[in-house]
Amino acid sequence: METKQQIGQNSPLAGVKVLDLGQIYQGPYASFLLAKAGANVIKVEPPKGEPSRLRAKIGRGASLPMVMLNTNKRGITLNLKTEKGRDLLKEIVLKADVLVENYAPGVLDRLGVGWSVLHEANPRLIYASATGYGLSGPDRDNLAMDLTVQAVSGIMSITGMPDGPPMRAGPSICDFLGGVHLFAGIMMALYERSTTGIGRLVEVAMEEAVYPTLASNLGLLYSSGTAASLRVGNRHGGLALAPYNVYRAKDGFVAIICVVEDHWAKLVAAMGRDELREDPRFATNQLRVANLSDTDRVVEEWTSNMLRADIFKLTSAHRVPSAPVRDLDEVMNDPHMHARGMLEWFDDPDLGRVVLPSTPIRLHGTDQVAMAASPLLGEHNEEVYSEWLGLSPTEMEKLRQDGVI
Amino acid sequence: METKQQIGQNSPLAGVKVLDLGQIYQGPYASFLLAKAGANVIKVEPPKGEPSRLRAKIGRGASLPMVMLNTNKRGITLNLKTEKGRDLLKEIVLKADVLVENYAPGVLDRLGVGWSVLHEANPRLIYASATGYGLSGPDRDNLAMDLTVQAVSGIMSITGMPDGPPMRAGPSICDFLGGVHLFAGIMMALYERSTTGIGRLVEVAMEEAVYPTLASNLGLLYSSGTAASLRVGNRHGGLALAPYNVYRAKDGFVAIICVVEDHWAKLVAAMGRDELREDPRFATNQLRVANLSDTDRVVEEWTSNMLRADIFKLTSAHRVPSAPVRDLDEVMNDPHMHARGMLEWFDDPDLGRVVLPSTPIRLHGTDQVAMAASPLLGEHNEEVYSEWLGLSPTEMEKLRQDGVI
Repeated sequence: METKQQIGQNSPLAGVKVLDLGQIYQGPYASFLLAKAGANVIKVEPPKGEPSRLRAKIGRGASLPMVMLNTNKRGITLNLKTEKGRDLLKEIVLKADVLVENYAPGVLDRLGVGWSVLHEANPRLIYASATGYGLSGPDRDNLAMDLTVQAVSGIMSITGMPDGPPMRAGPSICDFLGGVHLFAGIMMALYERSTTGIGRLVEVAMEEAVYPTLASNLGLLYSSGTAASLRVGNRHGGLALAPYNVYRAKDGFVAIICVVEDHWAKLVAAMGRDELREDPRFATNQLRVANLSDTDRVVEEWTSNMLRADIFKLTSAHRVPSAPVRDLDEVMNDPHMHARGMLEWFDDPDLGRVVLPSTPIRLHGTDQVAMAASPLLGEHNEEVYSEWLGLSPTEMEKLRQDGVI
Repeated sequence: METKQQIGQNSPLAGVKVLDLGQIYQGPYASFLLAKAGANVIKVEPPKGEPSRLRAKIGRGASLPMVMLNTNKRGITLNLKTEKGRDLLKEIVLKADVLVENYAPGVLDRLGVGWSVLHEANPRLIYASATGYGLSGPDRDNLAMDLTVQAVSGIMSITGMPDGPPMRAGPSICDFLGGVHLFAGIMMALYERSTTGIGRLVEVAMEEAVYPTLASNLGLLYSSGTAASLRVGNRHGGLALAPYNVYRAKDGFVAIICVVEDHWAKLVAAMGRDELREDPRFATNQLRVANLSDTDRVVEEWTSNMLRADIFKLTSAHRVPSAPVRDLDEVMNDPHMHARGMLEWFDDPDLGRVVLPSTPIRLHGTDQVAMAASPLLGEHNEEVYSEWLGLSPTEMEKLRQDGVI
């Protein structure tokens, strides 16, 4: 049976069936990417709703993320704390290609519906587990959320000003880096299964998913050979490039960086200060790094008397990398991302007219999945339980009364 | 011919051949993940080396990132600015499954070796393009680096203190979020190709890859309905949870958060201050958010007299999510990640003994790829040009003299 969320065959994941037990961000982002590539994703929630839905009830601020990450999924309820609920999961898993979950390590094993049980029931199943620290190792059971992983993974130690406290990166980067790595792992397992016919347990830990992003800063640690503060404000994480900073403008801030030597010559031309090319403090990148404060000062003397847009126009004309610091309102309304179909205005039944994202992954020549609203709690119980398991309305009514769905 | 980097068949990507034209972080991270899953990755550099290698020559701080991201690849040189070089690429592409590149949009098209030409030569080829803003749209040609994308994508506007300037997130999150999305797109295209036999142009833009990570903050924007500053320091991006902050300890800082109501009761117990449960300011999450400063103050009164490790021990015993803020030296030596094989000490021929990461994506039951050093410039020219194209030593000597390799 074709539903409105399922589209034509020209989607890379058409025909792939996914049970999404994800909650909050990490798991749901992996299944969001699956859904946006045309997979048939069923969001499975406890009868009261997953934590993200509960949080949305408390504060309106949490309702947009829930809606953002669950478009193009259908929603059912299932109580895994009941035996009948676990039996239903074992049955429905027989029809699935992928199961996504980001419960704490061992939770589903203890309920008797972990990888080993489900793999035996359906050897083709790909079981994708996202956690904070992974399924093994001494820290496995430490409680993990985006903020705690930002703390323990080193991100906070390198964010902020040299003389200030450690600072979290504003976006939920641990959750989302975890989620997209999990999605990638699922893709890899699907590819492998196309020859072997056998599914895999795919595992991603947030702490590990963020480690590579520290490359520049680890480089600075390696070269400086100390455990000194590696917080460098808006300067280059490896303190290897200058200019590389955020400079005050008349109406906000702009980022300007010189990646190759030529950029400096061009910047100096944009500034109308060609005489700086002769200045011995700034003759090479190495010298500019050695005279970091002076370098930043001459740039900011120029930017601070101009508007962001004018600075951007001039630096762009001279092919110097720069960008205005934009606030989220500007970003959400960005004409470029709207023109590309990455963002679109959508009438959500619950929230009204909001901007929602599509997937950042484009396979040219495939169909874009048309936006469909994030499901209400249990919205597709009838549809999915009848479609996948052939349950009758009477059977479903009984399950509802027994607190199973 | 089997080489030391190619391992047994029990790797998900065994047999997949990759030409990696990536530079700096975004492209090379995508191909790093390919290499770590067993693909046969050839790093293709201009005869002078890619920018990351050149930067490593200038400052030691940039040499570790180069080595971190290019393990398990073989390296060749190829000058695409010569006609013969472009001819060689067109020839070698016939043997490849995947080509990865993160040049600015249109660069390889203008050289006559872009997607359309290579796709016609080898319809099975997956051509993966990573850029700052994508291959279309009004901002396509804006210059993009991690810092400029952090500025323009909104990340900086939500990082830092409410009364401070916008702040960059310390790690290179735009580069790496772009890179891992590109890797995922390549996997998706490989999966699709296993049924269609045809490769795709896969495209990822950094600006789009980071948008979903703003979910909490976009939620706050949506609910507050203003374009007011969304910089909240270390507090929750949606200002929807409390306690949720980083607190001063005797020897540094700790992150502590209460995600569900129960966590507050447990935290109060850990603090030995059960009387706070009766305090009307803190009775519910909503009230604690309304009394944010008071909430944070009572927590910090407790943490500021204790050591990080003791706070962590106590909160863990009470099952309250918390974590010490660790510096990179601690992270690099983390016993947990070393025990899991995510990190390992490795004798790099150039750098000596350094800690290098493996892949964050685990498919249980597959072989882990043994660490092999990042290639020297052109280290595998002889091996690869003879293996893939059957070139003789004499032919290669000629190419070298002509500045082609």
